[in-house]
Amino acid sequence: MKHNSRKFLRKSPFLFIPLLLAVATLTPGHLQAQNTEEQFIRQVYDTALVHGKSYELLRQLTKGIGHRLSGSAGAEKAVAWGKQVMQELQFDTVWLQEVTVPHWERGKAEKVTLLGSGKEKNKTLHALALGGSPGTGAKGISAPIVMVNNFEELEQLGRKGVEGKIVFYNFPMNPSHIKTGQAYGEASPYRTHGPSRAAKLGAVGAVVRSLTTALDHVPHTGTTIFGEGVKPIPALAISTLDAEILSKSLKSGKKHNLYIETHSRTLPDATSYNVIGEIRGSEYPDRIITIGGHLDSWDVGEGAHDDGTGVVQSIEALRILKALEYQPRHTLRAVLFMNEENGLRGGRKYAEEAVRKGEVHVAAMESDNGGFTPIGFTVDATQESVAAIEALAPLFEKYQVNEFGAGSGGADIGPLKPQGTILIGYRPDTQRYFDIHHTAEDTFEKVNKRELELGTAAMTSLLYLLDKNLSE
Amino acid sequence: MKHNSRKFLRKSPFLFIPLLLAVATLTPGHLQAQNTEEQFIRQVYDTALVHGKSYELLRQLTKGIGHRLSGSAGAEKAVAWGKQVMQELQFDTVWLQEVTVPHWERGKAEKVTLLGSGKEKNKTLHALALGGSPGTGAKGISAPIVMVNNFEELEQLGRKGVEGKIVFYNFPMNPSHIKTGQAYGEASPYRTHGPSRAAKLGAVGAVVRSLTTALDHVPHTGTTIFGEGVKPIPALAISTLDAEILSKSLKSGKKHNLYIETHSRTLPDATSYNVIGEIRGSEYPDRIITIGGHLDSWDVGEGAHDDGTGVVQSIEALRILKALEYQPRHTLRAVLFMNEENGLRGGRKYAEEAVRKGEVHVAAMESDNGGFTPIGFTVDATQESVAAIEALAPLFEKYQVNEFGAGSGGADIGPLKPQGTILIGYRPDTQRYFDIHHTAEDTFEKVNKRELELGTAAMTSLLYLLDKNLSE
Repeated sequence: MKHNSRKFLRKSPFLFIPLLLAVATLTPGHLQAQNTEEQFIRQVYDTALVHGKSYELLRQLTKGIGHRLSGSAGAEKAVAWGKQVMQELQFDTVWLQEVTVPHWERGKAEKVTLLGSGKEKNKTLHALALGGSPGTGAKGISAPIVMVNNFEELEQLGRKGVEGKIVFYNFPMNPSHIKTGQAYGEASPYRTHGPSRAAKLGAVGAVVRSLTTALDHVPHTGTTIFGEGVKPIPALAISTLDAEILSKSLKSGKKHNLYIETHSRTLPDATSYNVIGEIRGSEYPDRIITIGGHLDSWDVGEGAHDDGTGVVQSIEALRILKALEYQPRHTLRAVLFMNEENGLRGGRKYAEEAVRKGEVHVAAMESDNGGFTPIGFTVDATQESVAAIEALAPLFEKYQVNEFGAGSGGADIGPLKPQGTILIGYRPDTQRYFDIHHTAEDTFEKVNKRELELGTAAMTSLLYLLDKNLSE
Repeated sequence: MKHNSRKFLRKSPFLFIPLLLAVATLTPGHLQAQNTEEQFIRQVYDTALVHGKSYELLRQLTKGIGHRLSGSAGAEKAVAWGKQVMQELQFDTVWLQEVTVPHWERGKAEKVTLLGSGKEKNKTLHALALGGSPGTGAKGISAPIVMVNNFEELEQLGRKGVEGKIVFYNFPMNPSHIKTGQAYGEASPYRTHGPSRAAKLGAVGAVVRSLTTALDHVPHTGTTIFGEGVKPIPALAISTLDAEILSKSLKSGKKHNLYIETHSRTLPDATSYNVIGEIRGSEYPDRIITIGGHLDSWDVGEGAHDDGTGVVQSIEALRILKALEYQPRHTLRAVLFMNEENGLRGGRKYAEEAVRKGEVHVAAMESDNGGFTPIGFTVDATQESVAAIEALAPLFEKYQVNEFGAGSGGADIGPLKPQGTILIGYRPDTQRYFDIHHTAEDTFEKVNKRELELGTAAMTSLLYLLDKNLSE
């Protein structure tokens, strides 16, 4: 029993109000409170698992609308859908928060062909242009490939070895890491910054090994960013199997030219929206706790695990609390962020508006790691707040949610950090996540109903506990 | 640190040798041992995740052979495959242990049609005959349906309400249980014993709602058992969606006759085999630790999660220890049991032979809950042995394997219990298991490579720790 450490400390550089929160001790009153909490959490789970709506909402978003990159028709439909759903659920207030978003389009499907000689000649590679990369023009580009395994090798080649060529980054995600996010964190700089660094040395194009430990023919897209003063070059991800074939061929001494043709382009910024629904707090209406996911997705597949599941879990958390006739003490908000994938403009805008309006955000939770079986929560806050949330772990034990500790909150809620908001990241089991992340395979069918619902229940339970125990 | 409770007690009613085992204390020597163990486990995980063979072995068993019910051609091929694989891996000894198994055949596909009136008229239900049930003959059976929600309702109807009818058991698996196995445990008696109890009251057939929380059109087969002196009746499982449609229609007051046609039959017992491979112990060659799964499967799908994954994990555990040049102190055996699904003859035979030969089985581990992400192990042994295995938990923390405690070992190893063997069940996350359990959907594609490999690594690590710490 670690409940006597259940205290929440909140330090806000903006508000200078050190809120010393509930320090519960093992009094009879406390034990009663704990029983109530246990019972309520059981009701949350029953509602999510027996009468849950997460799966049906996800079906609407993925099958009814599909993918929804910022600025696209899909994103526009998703905004309207999110607003309508929360209105129909009769949340107290539902509104749109305008956000100016980047607008990148893939255009016609990309082509990548291996030239040169031998059995790989004229082989078509499975590829997706990276978000933010420019098109090649209709004629495409043809240039020699130079392979590097990491940035050190790129720098060793220097301008002399890179200029006029297409750089192929072959840095695999490390399968021996238990947490797949760690492997992603190590390998993703090659996608995010690799093309820019190659362009800086005069490369005319870049191809990147897809970010997954799976060996297959599914390419994974994602954002690439070109640095200040760097002229963008066409950039694509190729499938891991193609990366294996290509690297073997190059290592054997063969020379290859690569033909790449992409039709992507960056259009003027577009107007879009965060979609926000709230239930007004009865005791602290001016103190807000948010729960959220991002409404936008990449422009392939259906954005089911990334991040349709986070969206529907957030809506469903508020719906379940309403269905159980819970009266929140704080104002609870479901926030469907726009533009997490290629700009984070929604998350930034939300935090800016909070500051501008003088809103107090006590805590914010995000689900953006897929809709798999829950294993825990990570907390980005003061040591005391982390300890206080760790102290809630015993209430989750029977639900097999075991991992509570310091860690990342989430991209969209990150901009709230300077306010001293307690940031909480929902952690599911991500072993399957990077098989489908940012691909055409991230579809409704890849989401398991029970796993999704268990995640919803865990998030709703924590939201309830935060509401019940914070600000005292 | 709870390592000072790492003691293993073994009590054997056959051998009367109370083996008081390693009571490690926190000496410098102990800490060194612990470092070694940590390092070795890291190597096990690296091998399983980077150079693992589980997935390829599973592909051979599921895609190369397919389903393999006891007595079938598939089972025969699987026996030959298991033997060959372990021989090629150069285990010290590989042999077949003869087992006489029941031989039930589905025959031509079953037909179930709803008669009566209204929109459901002539609706075909998605159904699978239950293992052990007899055929209807080519002409089929047509009789009125009577629905019961549980055994109490059956008893209330009595012979008068049941005679000459087809009993429909509509007991759903409870989705609010967190552990799916608990819901399965509550509902499975309707499949296992429902038809027999209906037959006893004069029913001419039985249909059972499929054992899954998923609402779909996939029927789930499984064993049904007829009691002494009860004349077997045709029995099938229907899909959960069909069960919903049928129950709604019956509840609304409609009467239906059901036409059922099954071509199943029980043939004379067949000869089959457990497949056993061992690596001889260097210190205690006469004390055995086994790791196993069952080689047989139901006769639909590919028996991938049930229990192809347990089979390949067991073989792979020994392969990995060999690959790491680990010299086991005990004799380690991979046991591929025959006939878990409809008889348990393999498990019984293995234990009988152990007694007959005076073999000492110190511990036995089984994987028969699917090849999903590992969450822990359950132990069926004395309190002291359970505590000793719980004390190993800290070594698994960084691998996110958290649940250690008392619980079931497994069906195949259960018959070793009277010897005082420590029985250990591998526990993966089973949220998806009952979506595909005993169905045509239990295929290779439903197994995730990383999840399978992580399970292999967890099992291999525990096998190593048992070998290293037992019998001292």
